Amino acid sequence: MKTLLKNALVVTMNANEEVYSEGSVLVEDDKISKIGHFELKEDVDEVIDCKGKIIMPGLVNTHVHTSQQLGRGLGDDVNLLTWLHDRIWPYESNMTEEDSYVSTLACCLEQIKCGCTAFAEPGGQYVSGMARGVAEAGVRAKLAKSVMDCGEGLPEVWQKTTEEELDKQEEDLKKFHNTHDGRVQVWFGLRTIFNCTDDLIVRSKELADKYNVGLHMHVAEVKDEVEYMQATRGEWTVTHLNKLGVLDKNFLAVHTVWLTNEEVEMFRDHQVKVSHNPAAAMRVLGFAKVPRMLREGICVTIGTDGAPSNNRMDMVDEMYLTSLIHKGWRLEPDVVKAQEILRMATINGAKALMDEELYGSLEVGKKADLIVINPDSAGMLPLHDPVANLVTSMHSSNVESTMCDGKWLMKDRIVLSLNEEEVLAAAKEHAAAIRSRAGIELPDRFPVVYPMSSK
Amino acid sequence: MKTLLKNALVVTMNANEEVYSEGSVLVEDDKISKIGHFELKEDVDEVIDCKGKIIMPGLVNTHVHTSQQLGRGLGDDVNLLTWLHDRIWPYESNMTEEDSYVSTLACCLEQIKCGCTAFAEPGGQYVSGMARGVAEAGVRAKLAKSVMDCGEGLPEVWQKTTEEELDKQEEDLKKFHNTHDGRVQVWFGLRTIFNCTDDLIVRSKELADKYNVGLHMHVAEVKDEVEYMQATRGEWTVTHLNKLGVLDKNFLAVHTVWLTNEEVEMFRDHQVKVSHNPAAAMRVLGFAKVPRMLREGICVTIGTDGAPSNNRMDMVDEMYLTSLIHKGWRLEPDVVKAQEILRMATINGAKALMDEELYGSLEVGKKADLIVINPDSAGMLPLHDPVANLVTSMHSSNVESTMCDGKWLMKDRIVLSLNEEEVLAAAKEHAAAIRSRAGIELPDRFPVVYPMSSK
Repeated sequence: MKTLLKNALVVTMNANEEVYSEGSVLVEDDKISKIGHFELKEDVDEVIDCKGKIIMPGLVNTHVHTSQQLGRGLGDDVNLLTWLHDRIWPYESNMTEEDSYVSTLACCLEQIKCGCTAFAEPGGQYVSGMARGVAEAGVRAKLAKSVMDCGEGLPEVWQKTTEEELDKQEEDLKKFHNTHDGRVQVWFGLRTIFNCTDDLIVRSKELADKYNVGLHMHVAEVKDEVEYMQATRGEWTVTHLNKLGVLDKNFLAVHTVWLTNEEVEMFRDHQVKVSHNPAAAMRVLGFAKVPRMLREGICVTIGTDGAPSNNRMDMVDEMYLTSLIHKGWRLEPDVVKAQEILRMATINGAKALMDEELYGSLEVGKKADLIVINPDSAGMLPLHDPVANLVTSMHSSNVESTMCDGKWLMKDRIVLSLNEEEVLAAAKEHAAAIRSRAGIELPDRFPVVYPMSSK
Repeated sequence: MKTLLKNALVVTMNANEEVYSEGSVLVEDDKISKIGHFELKEDVDEVIDCKGKIIMPGLVNTHVHTSQQLGRGLGDDVNLLTWLHDRIWPYESNMTEEDSYVSTLACCLEQIKCGCTAFAEPGGQYVSGMARGVAEAGVRAKLAKSVMDCGEGLPEVWQKTTEEELDKQEEDLKKFHNTHDGRVQVWFGLRTIFNCTDDLIVRSKELADKYNVGLHMHVAEVKDEVEYMQATRGEWTVTHLNKLGVLDKNFLAVHTVWLTNEEVEMFRDHQVKVSHNPAAAMRVLGFAKVPRMLREGICVTIGTDGAPSNNRMDMVDEMYLTSLIHKGWRLEPDVVKAQEILRMATINGAKALMDEELYGSLEVGKKADLIVINPDSAGMLPLHDPVANLVTSMHSSNVESTMCDGKWLMKDRIVLSLNEEEVLAAAKEHAAAIRSRAGIELPDRFPVVYPMSSK
């Protein structure tokens, strides 16, 4: 199967960061076989004229809770304890394997519509359900179990020993890792330092190394975490992780808001990968030192977090937010530039997912994971500075087509790998059922008047 | 002409903030004649079943530079002086009346697609051009000239006396105020305290009172402004405006980032209207004391600012940003709740535009300015908390239809009042021409490779 995309502005994100004006991309099966300006004498199966359009690598979302997709709106405008104990834990602990599957389908649907072709999941309830969803959707994912072996107030179903948690992850890994042409992979997860013993952390890192996979952990996310760590371990989270010897190239640290400058240097020295989640940061966590991390050469990437924390699971919006927020809190309008943000959302994401040889840029021999953007809309024109516009004014609705592994997952805004209507119907049904089982009640924000007949 | 919209979740934003479950709205000509649960015996011209959809008031954008729409992307990632002197002033001072018209059409197109039916323009180059654009687009607007009578480094074409500026505004007002069924109105504008003498400020307020219109001014927007005011007037901007006696109900103060708590009280005491522009604030200005202003009962509203400052002119995104940013900088996840944000974007906006009797809520006798939202999308479902979802997860692409003054401006995402394709084509052409006349060159962000044939 050969597909030729021609006449586009091709933003490659390759080592030289070349942009081809009126460029072409030839896709053969799952890979890019030509790129740039070339004459094609051979026949191809499909030719798409992309005049006026932009082609760039599929976006990489380095932190998205696929299992929380059906919980969108459960935790808006409440404090953190209510969020966790009264909303999210009851919701997550009442999910079935089928719920996890449907939730993942709904999340993947949103990822595809927002131009994301690969993501890292930090820990759902059922790796099996998530794996089924990802396989069907056609995207790539690093899936992890939500792993906890200690902590106050955990639902009973989650009270596990260190051994149980590690065994279950190895079992999942043996079953699901590297399945579906390698699109589905299994990583090790660690929920937070509040819920993980040092023993669990160290042994998870050993296992991640053994299987040559990554370790995905929420790190230094809230101010309370600093206080908790001072009280229990006598030092901040990253300093402690450094002492445990787990900071490494395959460590994906998420949020990383509460870090000293010395801890930023620890990340740099050990080539830790950082997932910056600007919406979650703005909503509750605080502002990560992203400008400093970028100056230090740390591989900073972008993630959406989960639907009850953001609530848009949209990498295009996250790029936009990343372009805004650091300028504002530092009052420096020229920090964290558009080109840095595009790196974060593409090639850096691929590095964090340990897949920079496979995707994250458009180059001959790499997987054909790409998106076609149609900027012809009231919200994105004019294109005085097209590379900047990808970050500062593009909406996900400008993503016209999404290809992963050489297959069109969405074409002209029609999702091909999933039945959108069926997925949305199932999502609504399962969301209501989980909430009912969990007994989560939300107050009305405004007085609701029902029709007489319903009384 | 009678249109019945039925079976929707109707978010009225009326005095009791009632929400009708499975509610209906009857529109007769330009007004709402029935709302809620009613049996209709009479014939109507159009019946629309809105099952599963949400109807709410059209959004009100209290600060949008329609004349900057074609300059989107001209000022990304640069410091403020470069932004103003090398990009925006050259751009704006090279616009023709026709450019202003085309720019306004493009901006109105984006407003309609984002569910905005009324806005305040803080000062374009040609009120005549803006008025033509607004009239055609079918929305409502308060238009002002960009008014300056002093300041360093102004382009020659803008060097005007106080008299000239005031005379021109009166002339515009007499020509265009209250035209097109009242949709087009003219206000008095004041660019910033850097560019307005006290004489101009005081006399503008007197004229605004005389004609019973508003006065629209950028106030306390950047930190430099505090320093400038200390040096030139010995006090901060709002304190100075208060001494001049211009703070009043018809004063629309935009940005208002650099205020003391006492100055917040001055706003409260004089019922000043505030336009909060979260994207612009995050991008460069700093964080306005919105939680404090809301606690003080100040009428806070939302604006998008202009395309080179944001760069999305999308009120749905601004609601989302408003829901995020104040939680984050204060580390208080339960401040500035979704229902407060809906007020800011609807009824408060109408109050700031001095039109709360006409629109901003859905009530019998008010103008039929409303939007129909289809939440059935991967990005917005499920609807555990539908009122919150309007703020925290809705995208402008969920706005299915937009009605203003009883007329459909957009139906099922198709804009009816304007020819979208023609407006976009004209926007591209005029944007390129203005930039060429202004001689604005932007550096390439990535190396661009052109095809051999173009060399």
